[in-house]
Amino acid sequence: MISFEEFKKIEIKVAKIVSVADHPNADKLYVLKIDLGGESRQIVAGLKPYYTPEELEGMTIAVVANLEPAKLRGVESQAMLLAAQEGDVVSCLQPDIRKQVSPGSKVL
Amino acid sequence: MISFEEFKKIEIKVAKIVSVADHPNADKLYVLKIDLGGESRQIVAGLKPYYTPEELEGMTIAVVANLEPAKLRGVESQAMLLAAQEGDVVSCLQPDIRKQVSPGSKVL
Repeated sequence: MISFEEFKKIEIKVAKIVSVADHPNADKLYVLKIDLGGESRQIVAGLKPYYTPEELEGMTIAVVANLEPAKLRGVESQAMLLAAQEGDVVSCLQPDIRKQVSPGSKVL
Repeated sequence: MISFEEFKKIEIKVAKIVSVADHPNADKLYVLKIDLGGESRQIVAGLKPYYTPEELEGMTIAVVANLEPAKLRGVESQAMLLAAQEGDVVSCLQPDIRKQVSPGSKVL
């Protein structure tokens, strides 16, 4: 169990995937450029077995925006996307498509 | 900034909204029953100004599953749903509708 104060430390925001490229040194990783509301960032994500680049490009997702940056196989990841997994299916979280919100919007 | 270890304390899961009722003592709150994968829980959520009951019933959402339960105006809330806000729009996070995952699936 965690307290609400612990949860509030995590900053989750809406982002839009601008571009998708293969990671130069890893078969299962993509390097995504995202728009976080006027701020551009790069994410390394293990989505290659689950999503085509076409499925991801332009998609609105949810990311943890205040994680310490980490290098993944030599490429810096500056946020982490949220995705649910069940067996062989990975499903990125996204805002309700009936209620559009802009990149940078905060998740509360 | 937070560390990955701090983020990992938060348990986010996919849930399905089974029913929606008005909170007995608060104009802006709903009391939702959710299916968390064979486990049933009750959530108090401030969604009434933003969603009709019909929009919520049957919806697949994402919730923080390991928050300490809290009483909101006398009704216990046993999880917290994740929703983005931009001005007058509140948009619940949901798994990508193209990649279906069951209630109880973990968000990583």
